[in-house]
Amino acid sequence: MRTYQLSDGPNEPVGDVDVFRWDGYERAGAMPFRAMWYRVPAGGVSPADRHPELELSIVVSGDAAVSVDGAEPVEVRQGGAFLLEAGERHVVHNRRPDEPLVVFSAYWFEQGPKRAAKRGQNDG
Amino acid sequence: MRTYQLSDGPNEPVGDVDVFRWDGYERAGAMPFRAMWYRVPAGGVSPADRHPELELSIVVSGDAAVSVDGAEPVEVRQGGAFLLEAGERHVVHNRRPDEPLVVFSAYWFEQGPKRAAKRGQNDG
Repeated sequence: MRTYQLSDGPNEPVGDVDVFRWDGYERAGAMPFRAMWYRVPAGGVSPADRHPELELSIVVSGDAAVSVDGAEPVEVRQGGAFLLEAGERHVVHNRRPDEPLVVFSAYWFEQGPKRAAKRGQNDG
Repeated sequence: MRTYQLSDGPNEPVGDVDVFRWDGYERAGAMPFRAMWYRVPAGGVSPADRHPELELSIVVSGDAAVSVDGAEPVEVRQGGAFLLEAGERHVVHNRRPDEPLVVFSAYWFEQGPKRAAKRGQNDG
């Protein structure tokens, strides 16, 4: 067994958001996804992000308010999870004035018909 | 975006531990792992478990004390993570007398050498 905590990795901040990617973690290569922790300061907001990977997030401390493609933010409270589809533009707000928001995220490229097609040299 | 919370799924308790598997969740099939939440009551302990999948766990509420293959339990506090290797026999203790322990776990079969070989070819 290995244990990990937020402070294990290097911090690669994006704006006001601290980002701790797991890429350098021992056994990260055994995981079928990449992973990170990120921390949004009290009252802060993440820069808008959009990527081709799906992303599953677990709110480990604080509460998140997640806006997708400019829509009204959706509350995801501590202990809850949210799944972002490929290409969804997302912004994560920490509306609490007194507590940082910490999120664990796993992200990956969806496999399935698309990838099968690539293997079969059908795309292109 | 979809959101999930512990109370969304059916509870399939194992001993005193509540287990909420994600298999029936919308878009669970898009994830390269299976997932669950489990809840160990205050002062409780999970039945010993051992399986061929790797398992990455995030402690979302409370603190865990995880014993592997009979060794002294290792503390994993709220917000921390632990990775169990295939076949490691594990027992999860909740030593807090006043608060349930909630853990998110993702689990998968390792695809090591196969994947590495494939990557090697693609990189070449």
